[in-house]
Amino acid sequence: MVKFSWTFLTTLLAVWAPSISALWPQPQHITTGTTPLRLSQGFSISLSNINGPPQDLKDAITRTQQYLQRDKLQILAVDRGASNAGAISKASILSKLTLSLDGGSVTSISQEAVKPLESRVEGYSLSIPANGGEAVLHANTTLGLFRGLTTFGQLWYDWDGTTYTLEAPVNIVDSPAYPYRGFMLDTARNYFSVSDILRVLDAMSWVKLNTFHWHVVDSQSFPLVVPGFEEISQNGAYSSAFTYSTSDVNYMVQYAAARGIDVIAEIDTPGHTAIIYTSHPEHVACPLATPWAQFANEPPAGQLRFASPVTTNFTASLLTSASSLFSSPYLSTGGDELNINCYTQDAQTQQELAQQNKTLEQALDTFTQTTHGALRMKGKTPVVWEEMALVHNVTLGNDTLVMVWISSQNVQAVAQKGFKVVHAASDYFYLDCGAGEWIGNDPAGNSWCDPFKTWQKAYTFNPTANLTEAQSKLIMGGKLWWSGAGGNVDTALPRLHDLSFRFLQRGVNTIPLQPLWCALRPGACDLTA
Amino acid sequence: MVKFSWTFLTTLLAVWAPSISALWPQPQHITTGTTPLRLSQGFSISLSNINGPPQDLKDAITRTQQYLQRDKLQILAVDRGASNAGAISKASILSKLTLSLDGGSVTSISQEAVKPLESRVEGYSLSIPANGGEAVLHANTTLGLFRGLTTFGQLWYDWDGTTYTLEAPVNIVDSPAYPYRGFMLDTARNYFSVSDILRVLDAMSWVKLNTFHWHVVDSQSFPLVVPGFEEISQNGAYSSAFTYSTSDVNYMVQYAAARGIDVIAEIDTPGHTAIIYTSHPEHVACPLATPWAQFANEPPAGQLRFASPVTTNFTASLLTSASSLFSSPYLSTGGDELNINCYTQDAQTQQELAQQNKTLEQALDTFTQTTHGALRMKGKTPVVWEEMALVHNVTLGNDTLVMVWISSQNVQAVAQKGFKVVHAASDYFYLDCGAGEWIGNDPAGNSWCDPFKTWQKAYTFNPTANLTEAQSKLIMGGKLWWSGAGGNVDTALPRLHDLSFRFLQRGVNTIPLQPLWCALRPGACDLTA
Repeated sequence: MVKFSWTFLTTLLAVWAPSISALWPQPQHITTGTTPLRLSQGFSISLSNINGPPQDLKDAITRTQQYLQRDKLQILAVDRGASNAGAISKASILSKLTLSLDGGSVTSISQEAVKPLESRVEGYSLSIPANGGEAVLHANTTLGLFRGLTTFGQLWYDWDGTTYTLEAPVNIVDSPAYPYRGFMLDTARNYFSVSDILRVLDAMSWVKLNTFHWHVVDSQSFPLVVPGFEEISQNGAYSSAFTYSTSDVNYMVQYAAARGIDVIAEIDTPGHTAIIYTSHPEHVACPLATPWAQFANEPPAGQLRFASPVTTNFTASLLTSASSLFSSPYLSTGGDELNINCYTQDAQTQQELAQQNKTLEQALDTFTQTTHGALRMKGKTPVVWEEMALVHNVTLGNDTLVMVWISSQNVQAVAQKGFKVVHAASDYFYLDCGAGEWIGNDPAGNSWCDPFKTWQKAYTFNPTANLTEAQSKLIMGGKLWWSGAGGNVDTALPRLHDLSFRFLQRGVNTIPLQPLWCALRPGACDLTA
Repeated sequence: MVKFSWTFLTTLLAVWAPSISALWPQPQHITTGTTPLRLSQGFSISLSNINGPPQDLKDAITRTQQYLQRDKLQILAVDRGASNAGAISKASILSKLTLSLDGGSVTSISQEAVKPLESRVEGYSLSIPANGGEAVLHANTTLGLFRGLTTFGQLWYDWDGTTYTLEAPVNIVDSPAYPYRGFMLDTARNYFSVSDILRVLDAMSWVKLNTFHWHVVDSQSFPLVVPGFEEISQNGAYSSAFTYSTSDVNYMVQYAAARGIDVIAEIDTPGHTAIIYTSHPEHVACPLATPWAQFANEPPAGQLRFASPVTTNFTASLLTSASSLFSSPYLSTGGDELNINCYTQDAQTQQELAQQNKTLEQALDTFTQTTHGALRMKGKTPVVWEEMALVHNVTLGNDTLVMVWISSQNVQAVAQKGFKVVHAASDYFYLDCGAGEWIGNDPAGNSWCDPFKTWQKAYTFNPTANLTEAQSKLIMGGKLWWSGAGGNVDTALPRLHDLSFRFLQRGVNTIPLQPLWCALRPGACDLTA
């Protein structure tokens, strides 16, 4: 039996909404106090012991100061912070953040961001005293300083023009649990403008994502202008307006790197290449073959004739040239969803195989070794989809990054083969599941990877499930993987609300995760609350 | 066995992409020819036989001319219309559209738009000759002329600055299959700005939706400023910025009516009213009771004490005042998801029932008759959710509009009781299903009405399934119901693509339904293609 009384109600209304550290991702080690602290009007960020600071670090400081001035994020409590006004007005004043580079060489963020995953150093420590004065950010690299600046920019709320926290002192020692923290965008099925991509890169940097996996071309369109291969995008882009020029790519790559993001381009081969037939019909088997479902997982059908030495050399040259556009140490050669029937039906492929006395799988191995070899000549490490490791008997270098997309159940098998793994499985991480499908004549219209993957589903994923300790070390990362395994959606949700509203403040749209009533009352919309 | 040859490929590439009449909804009767026709540079729309045309009709003409000039919608074919250039340049020129009002009185669109559903006249006929000259639009009402203007604005594509069709002559005789064609927006769980709502109203008018069902308040917040009851929104809105003032509402209602849209506000009672406790605790049972799941379907718990005559009169006055803000002949009193336990536990309600010697259901009947009676005194017809007709034994007028939301399976039962029905069932028409849920501590995070309702699912809905002919006449409509039952998603998809891209041209975001490759090739991404 529940009895209601005014006392009960009043008590409930007077409950102090807990202040939330609006941090995403969660730092590895953080201690906070309960002292109010506010930023001075002339709050400044300066560098100590850094001779000739790189421009991208100076720019990052400028952006951080802009966010501190412009983010008008109110605390997510019913009164939005009004009841803190008195405490804020009497709070000590923080006037300065000093950045200290403890490592030896002053390498730019952009250079650090494109180092091989194993040698990328992103850790930092941050101390904010309760009594005002000066905060200090330490790191061994400019990239680490940048991550610390990102954290610093998330620590504050606004009330009536004052930027404050209620949780000083703050002490953070932080570094990522996984070196690969990615977001993939497909710009081939539908084109995205350069400005759209820059906005994505901004948002990624705010949550310390460090890899933009750019699925730039596919069977439907080829928007990437590749030097020496301009005819492919001229014929294969949806239109000349729907292309990425070399200067576009340069700009995006630099923009990304300055924000700590490596751009791994994917030139998917030998499947997912139908549109190349519009400029190079000689290299494409089963172009536009119908019914498409017999020749490809998606229309249009058409795959590179990998049994042909001419096509293999063409592909190696294309990949080599494309790789020169990117400063990343990696390039993805794709390798998913190869349709065998396409080659069985292709007279030229059958003739090539007979001439070389090879099976299709042997020819694929030659093709892969040749194209990967060409990339390695350029200093690039290949990235492939899981089929290359699990379905086909191709020779892959041990350092190859293997992305698991079909099912998280396949991670163990990839790790057992000793390859480095990136978690990208559709059963946890595909953001386009559940919202209808593209097949034109299906009255139900469900997507192939129904249902929708909720943030809760992704957040509760266990990245080392069923793996030995040795296999676990092969996990390079996946999505939002700074803090390691997530798990507790209850405690994550308030932080995710804060993040969502901060994104809105910075001009990036987000969807409401709950009614605002719930967002203002952490826990009140839990079951059992 | 499939053989590939250049002849085969060339033939496929040369297939003429069919021109698509970019019309949504599909007119009831339409004949088109195959003659190219283009609009003159000085194309004009004029009125014949209309003395003193109302301002909203003149404004609609201006908007139509702007759309004709600014919509740069290219035909959805691989070459985007380039191969039509020759035909377009030699096409006859249409220089004029004349509107003819064949009815008697010149009543404004805004007045016609808020007539009772049965007396709203929206039909029109449109003739566009192939040989240029003058097109003619006939209707018996200004509202019909507006619908015809909307159709006219969708008939054209752009190539290189020329506005053209390939399908002249065009003859259309059109009127809606259903008088209620609605879109519901909830502004209580999360607030939407006035400008957001105006954008929704624009988009609705482009597809001839005529009812904006405004679920304006709920248990979470009360953003509507109701004259004489200002204290409710003062205490119950998320903030003073998150309210709709009387001038906001006036502007929205006029904006909607001028676009042929009736705004039916919903003041949900007696459930979904918790937030009223912040200003009127005396009227709310079980406010903020926990665990909330025992007292409400969503937090916060709290429902109007409908057994109390004082609360009943308060509610009747509130509804009366709220109804004065709207020109609609309808107002929804809600009536969904009443939680009985809340009243069982409420001492005051139990006391009232004992004093009046009534059951809870009898008290609900009195409450409903009183509040509906008050609305009828203001000339308003009540609208309710299905529970009021199916779960509770309340007395409802035969003209009450009953909205079915729980399941389309419940439509037959409502029709059997002789009530007018609006299809709004969650199993076909809820746009917020499948994209995660709001409960805070559920690791799976699935929404209560999973899965996502695809456009195909809604489009293939049969509005008169299991109904007799007499019952079918009680169906007032639902979503996108101009043309009646849809069904064939294959033929609808190309039109929906055109609509989607036209929305983008006009500044309303849409999601891609397919890769652009498919959109440019109708049918190519069907299974079996």
